[in-house]
Amino acid sequence: MVKITVLYGQPDDAGAFEDHYANEHVPLAAKMPNVARFEATRVVATPDGSPAPYYRMAELWFESMDAMQGAMGSEEGRATVADIQNFATGGATVLIGETD
Amino acid sequence: MVKITVLYGQPDDAGAFEDHYANEHVPLAAKMPNVARFEATRVVATPDGSPAPYYRMAELWFESMDAMQGAMGSEEGRATVADIQNFATGGATVLIGETD
Repeated sequence: MVKITVLYGQPDDAGAFEDHYANEHVPLAAKMPNVARFEATRVVATPDGSPAPYYRMAELWFESMDAMQGAMGSEEGRATVADIQNFATGGATVLIGETD
Repeated sequence: MVKITVLYGQPDDAGAFEDHYANEHVPLAAKMPNVARFEATRVVATPDGSPAPYYRMAELWFESMDAMQGAMGSEEGRATVADIQNFATGGATVLIGETD
Protein backbone atom coordinates (compact mmCIF):
# COMPACT_ATOMS: atom_id res chain seq x y z
CA MET A 1 0.00 0.00 0.00
CA VAL A 2 0.94 3.64 -0.28
CA LYS A 3 1.27 5.55 2.98
CA ILE A 4 1.58 9.21 3.84
CA THR A 5 3.29 9.83 7.17
CA VAL A 6 3.21 13.24 8.84
CA LEU A 7 5.76 13.78 11.61
CA TYR A 8 4.86 16.82 13.72
CA GLY A 9 7.67 18.59 15.55
CA GLN A 10 7.26 19.71 19.15
CA PRO A 11 4.71 22.56 19.17
CA ASP A 12 5.05 25.80 21.10
CA ASP A 13 1.79 25.07 22.96
CA ALA A 14 0.72 21.44 23.16
CA GLY A 15 -2.73 22.34 24.47
CA ALA A 16 -3.46 24.63 21.54
CA PHE A 17 -2.12 21.99 19.14
CA GLU A 18 -4.32 19.28 20.62
CA ASP A 19 -7.39 21.48 20.54
CA HIS A 20 -6.99 22.43 16.88
CA TYR A 21 -5.86 18.95 15.89
CA ALA A 22 -8.80 17.10 17.41
CA ASN A 23 -11.51 19.63 16.64
CA GLU A 24 -10.45 21.02 13.28
CA HIS A 25 -7.73 19.02 11.59
CA VAL A 26 -8.80 15.41 12.05
CA PRO A 27 -12.38 16.22 10.98
CA LEU A 28 -10.99 17.87 7.83
CA ALA A 29 -8.76 14.87 7.10
CA ALA A 30 -11.72 12.55 7.63
CA LYS A 31 -13.41 14.12 4.59
CA MET A 32 -10.57 13.16 2.24
CA PRO A 33 -11.49 10.56 -0.37
CA ASN A 34 -9.66 7.27 -0.95
CA VAL A 35 -8.22 6.93 2.57
CA ALA A 36 -8.16 3.20 3.35
CA ARG A 37 -6.92 3.64 6.90
CA PHE A 38 -5.97 6.50 9.22
CA GLU A 39 -3.98 6.39 12.42
CA ALA A 40 -2.90 9.20 14.73
CA THR A 41 -0.18 8.57 17.31
CA ARG A 42 1.06 10.70 20.17
CA VAL A 43 4.76 10.22 20.87
CA VAL A 44 5.22 9.54 24.57
CA ALA A 45 8.87 8.55 24.92
CA THR A 46 12.11 7.43 23.34
CA PRO A 47 13.89 4.21 24.33
CA ASP A 48 16.88 6.02 25.86
CA GLY A 49 14.89 8.81 27.50
CA SER A 50 16.24 11.50 25.18
CA PRO A 51 13.81 14.23 24.05
CA ALA A 52 11.58 13.00 21.24
CA PRO A 53 12.21 14.85 17.96
CA TYR A 54 8.50 14.59 17.13
CA TYR A 55 5.36 15.28 19.08
CA ARG A 56 2.81 13.40 17.01
CA MET A 57 2.58 11.37 13.86
CA ALA A 58 -0.34 10.77 11.53
CA GLU A 59 -0.55 8.11 8.84
CA LEU A 60 -2.90 7.68 5.92
CA TRP A 61 -2.91 4.47 3.89
CA PHE A 62 -4.10 4.24 0.27
CA GLU A 63 -4.60 1.31 -2.07
CA SER A 64 -2.34 2.81 -4.75
CA MET A 65 -0.26 5.83 -5.73
CA ASP A 66 -3.16 6.97 -7.93
CA ALA A 67 -5.55 6.80 -4.99
CA MET A 68 -3.12 8.83 -2.86
CA GLN A 69 -2.65 11.46 -5.56
CA GLY A 70 -6.41 11.67 -6.05
CA ALA A 71 -6.85 12.27 -2.35
CA MET A 72 -4.15 14.90 -2.03
CA GLY A 73 -5.32 16.70 -5.16
CA SER A 74 -8.95 16.83 -4.07
CA GLU A 75 -10.52 19.92 -2.54
CA GLU A 76 -10.66 18.14 0.82
CA GLY A 77 -7.03 17.07 0.57
CA ARG A 78 -5.85 20.56 -0.26
CA ALA A 79 -7.86 21.99 2.64
CA THR A 80 -6.32 19.43 5.00
CA VAL A 81 -2.77 20.22 3.90
CA ALA A 82 -3.44 23.98 4.07
CA ASP A 83 -4.70 23.61 7.64
CA ILE A 84 -1.36 22.22 8.88
CA GLN A 85 0.13 25.71 9.12
CA ASN A 86 -2.70 26.70 11.47
CA PHE A 87 -1.49 24.51 14.35
CA ALA A 88 1.82 22.76 13.55
CA THR A 89 4.06 25.35 15.19
CA GLY A 90 6.87 22.80 15.44
CA GLY A 91 6.76 22.05 11.72
CA ALA A 92 5.63 18.96 9.87
CA THR A 93 7.75 16.48 7.93
CA VAL A 94 5.77 14.56 5.31
CA LEU A 95 6.90 11.26 3.79
CA ILE A 96 5.34 9.26 0.97
CA GLY A 97 6.07 5.57 1.29
CA GLU A 98 5.27 2.13 -0.05
CA THR A 99 4.73 -0.68 2.42
CA ASP A 100 6.66 -3.91 1.84
CA MET B 1 -2.33 0.72 21.18
CA VAL B 2 1.34 1.26 21.82
CA LYS B 3 3.54 1.66 18.77
CA ILE B 4 7.27 1.67 18.23
CA THR B 5 8.35 3.56 15.12
CA VAL B 6 11.87 3.27 13.72
CA LEU B 7 12.88 5.94 11.23
CA TYR B 8 15.99 4.92 9.30
CA GLY B 9 18.19 7.67 7.87
CA GLN B 10 19.57 7.44 4.35
CA PRO B 11 22.15 4.62 4.33
CA ASP B 12 25.56 4.77 2.69
CA ASP B 13 24.69 1.76 0.52
CA ALA B 14 21.01 1.08 -0.08
CA GLY B 15 21.68 -2.32 -1.61
CA ALA B 16 23.63 -3.51 1.42
CA PHE B 17 20.93 -2.11 3.71
CA GLU B 18 18.16 -3.89 1.84
CA ASP B 19 20.04 -7.18 1.83
CA HIS B 20 20.70 -7.16 5.57
CA TYR B 21 17.27 -5.75 6.38
CA ALA B 22 15.29 -8.37 4.46
CA ASN B 23 17.48 -11.38 5.19
CA GLU B 24 18.67 -10.72 8.73
CA HIS B 25 16.80 -7.96 10.50
CA VAL B 26 13.16 -8.62 9.66
CA PRO B 27 13.52 -12.35 10.47
CA LEU B 28 15.02 -11.37 13.85
CA ALA B 29 12.19 -8.91 14.53
CA ALA B 30 9.65 -11.57 13.58
CA LYS B 31 10.81 -13.64 16.56
CA MET B 32 9.91 -10.93 19.07
CA PRO B 33 7.01 -11.78 21.39
CA ASN B 34 3.87 -9.66 21.85
CA VAL B 35 3.97 -7.94 18.46
CA ALA B 36 0.35 -7.42 17.39
CA ARG B 37 1.22 -5.96 14.01
CA PHE B 38 4.34 -5.13 12.02
CA GLU B 39 4.69 -2.90 9.00
CA ALA B 40 7.79 -1.93 7.03
CA THR B 41 7.64 1.03 4.66
CA ARG B 42 10.12 2.28 2.08
CA VAL B 43 10.07 6.05 1.66
CA VAL B 44 9.74 6.87 -2.01
CA ALA B 45 9.15 10.62 -2.13
CA THR B 46 8.21 13.81 -0.36
CA PRO B 47 5.27 15.99 -1.46
CA ASP B 48 7.48 18.89 -2.56
CA GLY B 49 10.20 16.78 -4.15
CA SER B 50 12.79 17.64 -1.51
CA PRO B 51 15.17 14.86 -0.40
CA ALA B 52 13.50 12.56 2.12
CA PRO B 53 15.10 12.73 5.56
CA TYR B 54 14.42 9.02 6.05
CA TYR B 55 14.97 5.99 3.90
CA ARG B 56 12.69 3.49 5.58
CA MET B 57 10.38 3.21 8.53
CA ALA B 58 9.31 0.20 10.54
CA GLU B 59 6.43 0.05 12.98
CA LEU B 60 5.51 -2.47 15.65
CA TRP B 61 2.16 -2.32 17.41
CA PHE B 62 1.50 -3.76 20.88
CA GLU B 63 -1.66 -4.14 22.94
CA SER B 64 -0.20 -2.26 25.92
CA MET B 65 2.92 -0.58 27.30
CA ASP B 66 3.58 -3.73 29.34
CA ALA B 67 3.45 -5.87 26.20
CA MET B 68 5.87 -3.50 24.44
CA GLN B 69 8.28 -3.50 27.36
CA GLY B 70 8.10 -7.28 27.55
CA ALA B 71 8.98 -7.50 23.88
CA MET B 72 11.86 -5.07 24.02
CA GLY B 73 13.27 -6.65 27.16
CA SER B 74 13.14 -10.18 25.75
CA GLU B 75 16.19 -11.93 24.35
CA GLU B 76 14.71 -11.62 20.86
CA GLY B 77 13.96 -7.93 21.35
CA ARG B 78 17.47 -7.18 22.55
CA ALA B 79 18.94 -9.09 19.61
CA THR B 80 16.77 -7.12 17.19
CA VAL B 81 17.81 -3.77 18.65
CA ALA B 82 21.47 -4.80 18.73
CA ASP B 83 21.30 -5.73 15.04
CA ILE B 84 20.34 -2.19 13.99
CA GLN B 85 23.96 -1.05 14.15
CA ASN B 86 24.87 -3.77 11.65
CA PHE B 87 23.08 -2.11 8.72
CA ALA B 88 21.57 1.28 9.67
CA THR B 89 24.50 3.37 8.45
CA GLY B 90 22.25 6.44 8.24
CA GLY B 91 21.18 6.11 11.86
CA ALA B 92 17.85 5.16 13.35
CA THR B 93 15.43 7.36 15.27
CA VAL B 94 13.10 5.39 17.54
CA LEU B 95 9.81 6.71 18.90
CA ILE B 96 7.43 5.15 21.41
CA GLY B 97 3.87 6.29 20.87
CA GLU B 98 0.27 5.73 21.85
CA THR B 99 -2.36 5.68 19.14
CA ASP B 100 -5.44 7.88 19.62
